[in-house]
Amino acid sequence: MNTSPVGSDAGSHTGSHTGSGVKPDLTRLSLNQKTTNTWGVAEAVAGCVRKGIPAIGLWREPVQDVGLERAVELVRDARLRVSSLCRGGFLTAAEPAARQRALDDNRLAVDEAAALGAPCLVLVVGGLPDGSRDLPAARERVAEAIAELAPYAGERGVRLALEPLHPMYCADRAVLSTLAQALDLAEQFPVEQVGVVVDTFHLWWDPEVWTQIARAGARITSFQVCDFNLPIPADALLARGMMGDGVIDFRPFREAVDAAGYTGDIEVEIFNAEVWAADPDEVLATMIQRYAELVL
Amino acid sequence: MNTSPVGSDAGSHTGSHTGSGVKPDLTRLSLNQKTTNTWGVAEAVAGCVRKGIPAIGLWREPVQDVGLERAVELVRDARLRVSSLCRGGFLTAAEPAARQRALDDNRLAVDEAAALGAPCLVLVVGGLPDGSRDLPAARERVAEAIAELAPYAGERGVRLALEPLHPMYCADRAVLSTLAQALDLAEQFPVEQVGVVVDTFHLWWDPEVWTQIARAGARITSFQVCDFNLPIPADALLARGMMGDGVIDFRPFREAVDAAGYTGDIEVEIFNAEVWAADPDEVLATMIQRYAELVL
Repeated sequence: MNTSPVGSDAGSHTGSHTGSGVKPDLTRLSLNQKTTNTWGVAEAVAGCVRKGIPAIGLWREPVQDVGLERAVELVRDARLRVSSLCRGGFLTAAEPAARQRALDDNRLAVDEAAALGAPCLVLVVGGLPDGSRDLPAARERVAEAIAELAPYAGERGVRLALEPLHPMYCADRAVLSTLAQALDLAEQFPVEQVGVVVDTFHLWWDPEVWTQIARAGARITSFQVCDFNLPIPADALLARGMMGDGVIDFRPFREAVDAAGYTGDIEVEIFNAEVWAADPDEVLATMIQRYAELVL
Repeated sequence: MNTSPVGSDAGSHTGSHTGSGVKPDLTRLSLNQKTTNTWGVAEAVAGCVRKGIPAIGLWREPVQDVGLERAVELVRDARLRVSSLCRGGFLTAAEPAARQRALDDNRLAVDEAAALGAPCLVLVVGGLPDGSRDLPAARERVAEAIAELAPYAGERGVRLALEPLHPMYCADRAVLSTLAQALDLAEQFPVEQVGVVVDTFHLWWDPEVWTQIARAGARITSFQVCDFNLPIPADALLARGMMGDGVIDFRPFREAVDAAGYTGDIEVEIFNAEVWAADPDEVLATMIQRYAELVL
């Protein structure tokens, strides 16, 4: 298996979209800016423009680094779509003051998403509070928090995008672990207020994923792709790899999401030490090639 | 959170079964010998006898180290129950010769389990073959192999115990990831031929686990406990921790398994570098204490 995060050769994959002189169709491609982690908003926006990538997924911290107004200007002047804002969430605190801070911060994140024209705010809902083993209670607090935030988001034209995370992050990142579970929660609210994220890395193993993608339909608010690499690195968050470097078969996911009616952007979001250490322009070139070969 | 694998203090847990002079009820406790990984069969059997542990889960490699006949003698002379034999499986090879070797080896493992009086052979079904990304095909091959092995096992009084593994092992260890999925497969065969393993480490995150344990009923062939420790170590297989050192709430699992009608042994199976480096007799003492405090 090809383990080079920025290699120009996708190994055994033969794509019909590259190497033949035909320009790949990038209409739906979005760069999640975490993929080019050393770039700020200005550099990532400029990189998208150079490569013909029409959309970008932004993160709150780099947006705050340049200031929200400047970030709004940058994407508007570059005529990029903002496919999502990452991320809100972390809604499992039991302690009232911590809980209130989390809710306030999520409202602020909704405001930022609205200003940026992002259709959704991605929510990583949070893990078990320190020292707690009460998973049902943590899940209940997430549901209560979503009930409080959903109308606020809806009024501002932003959808809360519940992201089920791989079960290996259940304890420390997200007590939402499957698409079925995310949909059970999302469906308690109007579709324009609460949707779900379909992320190949988090869901590829799930024997129910095809049924649940079909069920999700218009709830699909964001489609994120990256590979699942082995071995899982010491920092388990960094197992997200370049498409083609891991074990995921992408096309069935893209086709399932399409069949469910999703017509939005396809965001490439990679957390990976080697990818982050590479030249971001080379990362974009590889990303475009692999996207065309393996996802489209 | 207490991270000492062999500490004599289970931290904030207050058990009614220890420290009060009342001897804990070890009737259902089984030592999976992997927990005392530096011990061979003879030492593990002797350790169980010293500590009043009435059952043992054996592994094929240490059994082969002393020889099957000698292992049979050791457990018989010590009057220990053999709660399970670990493990068969690895049934996902696509290549015919490799596939045949796997089936032959699983028949041999069934014979060993029968000789040892183990009620079940635990199956870790295998991950994706090298270079493959075809998860549905790997799952199909598992189903075909179980169909071939189930009658053979049933005729020898051994149940095949399908073990759903945590989804972080889907690519390289087991394409069975949830109890629902294991039951969907097991239910295609007579209950005396194919059952399932309920292992807290693998299943604790699953929002469907309570429903599925109830559904499992008489299919539950083995109940294994250990904790889920964070961070996930470099060798992800070694994240299994001593009860009380991680994030799992054990009693609801034991109660759910009991309510489903399971009356068999409760096996403690820990893969953990620190536990393995500790004095095995101290590990057993801690295991008994934590079992009484947190599982019963």
